[in-house]
Amino acid sequence: MPELRKDPITGRWVIIATDRAKRPGDFIRQPVPPAQQTVCPFDSGHENKTPPEVLAYRNGGGRDQPGWRVRVVPNKFPVLGIEGDLSRQGEGMYDKMSGIGANEVIIETPDHAATLSDMPEHQIAEVLRAFKDRVNDLKRDRRFRYIILFRNYGEAAGASLEHPHSQLIALPVIPNVVKEEVDASREFHEAKERCIFCDIIHEESSAGARLISETDRFTVLAPYAPRFPFETWILPKQHASHYEDSEPALLDNLAWVLRSTMRKIDKVLERPAYNFIVHSAPVQEAPLAYYHWHIEIIPKLTKVAGFEWGTGFYINPTPPEEAARFLREAGLG
Amino acid sequence: MPELRKDPITGRWVIIATDRAKRPGDFIRQPVPPAQQTVCPFDSGHENKTPPEVLAYRNGGGRDQPGWRVRVVPNKFPVLGIEGDLSRQGEGMYDKMSGIGANEVIIETPDHAATLSDMPEHQIAEVLRAFKDRVNDLKRDRRFRYIILFRNYGEAAGASLEHPHSQLIALPVIPNVVKEEVDASREFHEAKERCIFCDIIHEESSAGARLISETDRFTVLAPYAPRFPFETWILPKQHASHYEDSEPALLDNLAWVLRSTMRKIDKVLERPAYNFIVHSAPVQEAPLAYYHWHIEIIPKLTKVAGFEWGTGFYINPTPPEEAARFLREAGLG
Repeated sequence: MPELRKDPITGRWVIIATDRAKRPGDFIRQPVPPAQQTVCPFDSGHENKTPPEVLAYRNGGGRDQPGWRVRVVPNKFPVLGIEGDLSRQGEGMYDKMSGIGANEVIIETPDHAATLSDMPEHQIAEVLRAFKDRVNDLKRDRRFRYIILFRNYGEAAGASLEHPHSQLIALPVIPNVVKEEVDASREFHEAKERCIFCDIIHEESSAGARLISETDRFTVLAPYAPRFPFETWILPKQHASHYEDSEPALLDNLAWVLRSTMRKIDKVLERPAYNFIVHSAPVQEAPLAYYHWHIEIIPKLTKVAGFEWGTGFYINPTPPEEAARFLREAGLG
Repeated sequence: MPELRKDPITGRWVIIATDRAKRPGDFIRQPVPPAQQTVCPFDSGHENKTPPEVLAYRNGGGRDQPGWRVRVVPNKFPVLGIEGDLSRQGEGMYDKMSGIGANEVIIETPDHAATLSDMPEHQIAEVLRAFKDRVNDLKRDRRFRYIILFRNYGEAAGASLEHPHSQLIALPVIPNVVKEEVDASREFHEAKERCIFCDIIHEESSAGARLISETDRFTVLAPYAPRFPFETWILPKQHASHYEDSEPALLDNLAWVLRSTMRKIDKVLERPAYNFIVHSAPVQEAPLAYYHWHIEIIPKLTKVAGFEWGTGFYINPTPPEEAARFLREAGLG
């Protein structure tokens, strides 16, 4: 008998298959091939193939020259435009708004073939610092109400370039999914005077069945009601609502945790395509007692079909307890 | 400058690309290959390869024998189990429920290679009648609060068997996406004393820019704020909340409309993979003045990536006015 489980934050139900639970080897493996594009606009020496950089950490070289370790540039094909007024307008019975926003690419390393699993830890820490620096810079623009950081790895997960990179999108509205998560956390806090994410960290850390790994500063777990097989969350143990307020030491530890988690995923699932998303509080809000930033990693193993689109109800063929056990047993720190 | 548009029903924002709008030829075409599996459990003569039928329309032959025109069977690998009690249970801080539900397959024709574009109209009408008959039968089981009907076509859209078929899933809870749509429609009705879908039909039918086709009974349109390129909705002109209450004459006309719409989509987008989903009111509700059943067709042309998963905010590279124009100009009724 399968199980219906309710996500305690969003109230979203998922179906967890229990009888014929899929083990890692039961998914069709499509390992992301090693990077091999010969012409790449993100390579060192090709700085003129991207818009001018907005941030770079450098060993030497001038602006838009080689010598960078991490480089952030506006997306050449942005989904939103940075210039212009934020005009809101009715259109018959409908509402629209000018597509103001920022869309930047964080080029994580000059090494075209690197992956999060094999990048040096200090390199990943610099990427995480670039995330923070860019958000802190962009949030001064009061038009932006939400900034999302994400990484698409592999074509199946929507990546169009293979050079290691993440993206940032700054939005003039708070997206529905974020609003739901934030509103629900606030309601929980109003009722219990506790952060629901802190409760989850505490519960999972003691129970252990869905725990993947822990450091002094972070908990890595499979959530109770995951939409996707091997969905993995990384949460800071100390309560904080905004990623961009993180201290350098926290990001150093996160670099280690993120790499070790990706190594486990790559080992167990054979270098799958994946998305990772930083969930953080709306940028114009002061620190919030009820919201807790975290990272969600979604390996791309299944296809989303009519049932999911029609209902928002996901069928997950791997119980999170199984997923956590496989990842835990992969070792690798 | 791209445009942010708000879906008037759910309040969901989407980004509509306007500058570099994608035309049909700009998408990577992956036409669903003609059906060619040689061994198929849904073929006539293979009735013993499926669980016993729960409904069949027949020219002759006995139960689970050849001679059927449309045949409905339980899914051999159901996502939910039909037997047992609907037990709700706490688990630490979490909530779960036994996975009670029904999962049936509507085998639409004995013709393995048929598609919705080339099936005879009366055959499609029988499929639509089977949808109605199964929902009316299953809703007598008061454990089921929502029944979803959907069709996945092509591997990219999640279909694992190529024989023409749709599916039905009966659920013991009302899924989030449905609840949002129903709640939002009710709020609109409370404020305006009108059905928002009736308003949309009226608006689009007069404006015309997003209108794809019309009959006396149905309006086919591209919604104002579609999540996906070439997303297409079919709505009955006369208000009705429950699909399963449809009269035979309405379903006959729907068969024509559905086939003509799929022909347009197949012509313009070269037989893409797609999902279609029947959006209908929760089955245990009496007829509702504020909700309006309809069909949503989503051609599978883009990949959903980190940004969409993290925000629920979709980037649509084709304005619906463009999509509607291409489909309108495809002709075919």
